[in-house]
Amino acid sequence: MAIRYELQKQCPHTGARAGLLHTPHGTYETPMFMPVGTQATVKTLAPEELKAMGSQVILSNTYHLFLRPGADLVEEAGGLHKFMNWDQAILTDSGGFQVFSLGKLRKITEEGVNFRSHLDGSKKFLSPEVATKVQEQLGSDIMMAFDECIPYPADHRYADASTARTTRWAERCQEVRRSKNQGMFGIVQGGMYKDLRERSAKELVDMDFEGYSIGGLSVGEPHDLMYEVLEYTTPLLPTNKARYLMGVGTADCLVEGVARGVDMFDCVYPTRVARNGMAMTWKGRLNLRNASFMRDWGPIEEGCGCYACQNYSRAYIRHLYKAEEILAFRLVSYHNLYFLLEFMRQMRKAILEDRFVAFREEFWQYFTK
Amino acid sequence: MAIRYELQKQCPHTGARAGLLHTPHGTYETPMFMPVGTQATVKTLAPEELKAMGSQVILSNTYHLFLRPGADLVEEAGGLHKFMNWDQAILTDSGGFQVFSLGKLRKITEEGVNFRSHLDGSKKFLSPEVATKVQEQLGSDIMMAFDECIPYPADHRYADASTARTTRWAERCQEVRRSKNQGMFGIVQGGMYKDLRERSAKELVDMDFEGYSIGGLSVGEPHDLMYEVLEYTTPLLPTNKARYLMGVGTADCLVEGVARGVDMFDCVYPTRVARNGMAMTWKGRLNLRNASFMRDWGPIEEGCGCYACQNYSRAYIRHLYKAEEILAFRLVSYHNLYFLLEFMRQMRKAILEDRFVAFREEFWQYFTK
Repeated sequence: MAIRYELQKQCPHTGARAGLLHTPHGTYETPMFMPVGTQATVKTLAPEELKAMGSQVILSNTYHLFLRPGADLVEEAGGLHKFMNWDQAILTDSGGFQVFSLGKLRKITEEGVNFRSHLDGSKKFLSPEVATKVQEQLGSDIMMAFDECIPYPADHRYADASTARTTRWAERCQEVRRSKNQGMFGIVQGGMYKDLRERSAKELVDMDFEGYSIGGLSVGEPHDLMYEVLEYTTPLLPTNKARYLMGVGTADCLVEGVARGVDMFDCVYPTRVARNGMAMTWKGRLNLRNASFMRDWGPIEEGCGCYACQNYSRAYIRHLYKAEEILAFRLVSYHNLYFLLEFMRQMRKAILEDRFVAFREEFWQYFTK
Repeated sequence: MAIRYELQKQCPHTGARAGLLHTPHGTYETPMFMPVGTQATVKTLAPEELKAMGSQVILSNTYHLFLRPGADLVEEAGGLHKFMNWDQAILTDSGGFQVFSLGKLRKITEEGVNFRSHLDGSKKFLSPEVATKVQEQLGSDIMMAFDECIPYPADHRYADASTARTTRWAERCQEVRRSKNQGMFGIVQGGMYKDLRERSAKELVDMDFEGYSIGGLSVGEPHDLMYEVLEYTTPLLPTNKARYLMGVGTADCLVEGVARGVDMFDCVYPTRVARNGMAMTWKGRLNLRNASFMRDWGPIEEGCGCYACQNYSRAYIRHLYKAEEILAFRLVSYHNLYFLLEFMRQMRKAILEDRFVAFREEFWQYFTK
């Protein structure tokens, strides 16, 4: 099996667990956060920087690469790893989330989704078969089954029909996949409905994927609702497979996701907000463009071991933002990703040392949303 | 003396020379090209990258830093080196070139230049005294005397008066400078007039600066005219001082400048064109956005030892440009600066090995403007 999850430690008080994810491009520690390289690059950063900060797996987007530069071209390059100069693991999403975000530009049928490219308006088609083929051409280590991400809110009837279709699509993905060097995760949908999540999980587990994603969360619902859905969904999944909560990347959601049994996360949040001047810290966010940092000679966060904090002051970084210099984006993207990776490392350590509950309590003592 | 030039080798057939520049932040090899960090950062790059490519001295702009973040703030940071995390040498210009480029937004008097900030329209004033003070606050290793950069074309009467004023301003700079850890170069002006260049050089040499810049070139005149002016200007300068041709950064001008006795160059060209997709090579420029590179799996330039060429294909870099990803700017900025630095290293080696004439001939055989 291309992808294997190894459970190392289960927290006795919560769902939190520490493990290892074995992939064709190395073994990685969970819980983990995966930086997002939407267009075959993690915005503003080079692969060596991602490695230096301890990034182990990155995510790239099937939808974006399908449209540009195209899966054929990436395949011709020797696959995505070679194309983008990244020799560690890559997870690709299914394209479903982006396609469904297109709104009126797409039309769903049982066969798949017809849509218009956001780049040039040209007609495109994605389906379980196409999404699987594209991901095999990209050569990611972990593929996602093609799914529909149900919007929030959605009524039960819509969620029911959509979830049933996602299951049928998952079957079609399993049928057509050929690559032996790539794992595939099924994506549990079901909206905010427990009965649908249960059905979705059961049906996907029966198909025996190499791991399971929890989709359709972090789509605008309140955090408490997301936590509630997680709470009853992760126990439906096998303990010997990795669980991946898609699109979540703030410290508060990570610690609460881990507490509910999630192993993997991804989000554009840390790099996106970095480009707007926002730094992530253990105490919450800082807007580095603020005048209050004009003569602040300290690092972004005291005690942080990242390249930006080791070498630059808040005052300098604020200057770079005001001067619209790219180095600002680089430094704060670096810091934010380092922060999340370090956060996950410390969380993992706490789980292994049987003190996750204390870690979580201490986190909430200092953190402000 | 804070700055000392050591002549190592004089080409017997041309003006080309190899030497060492001793500064408070290290000893550097000439001829050299200095990357430009206009706003206290070389656009898109980090200091470690500049060091890795062999950059020895960088330039930063007095005008820009004077306006933002302000010299007081940089001084409070401990000087420009500390502010921007660069521990090798820094050269600052005088602010003259930028101020005079403002056109109607500035007014020149004997005292100095009143102008409006291009950032917020506020009234500002630069003079020999202010420019010297600002550069002392920045703490650059090499300061420039405050000068007027004469536009091209300019009639003899205007050039004559302006050049005479630049001399008077240079005297005022010498009078007010206090720092013992910073050298200052006088800037030879005179437009395209031999008699004025001769007078300017003589007057500045009499003031015994630590080095001499040749200003007012690369301002729109034909290359042949620039070469002609250089040809009669550098012999007017002492052989035991460095000569710096301001604002020149293409391979053809560098080799011809060196042939005429220039030791130092700077220009935003390599980083500016990089952001537009233009790569510099030994054969001339390449527009990496071109469709012809879509499936080109070779490096920007075969045989190039730079980070970009060692790790990425033209096809990938083209994809990054099309996708408007910052890594494109980083990779090609890196390549272009590496190219110029390597070009200077090879030129220096040729001078030291008495084969500069052959180097120059071979260069012109392959290079296309």
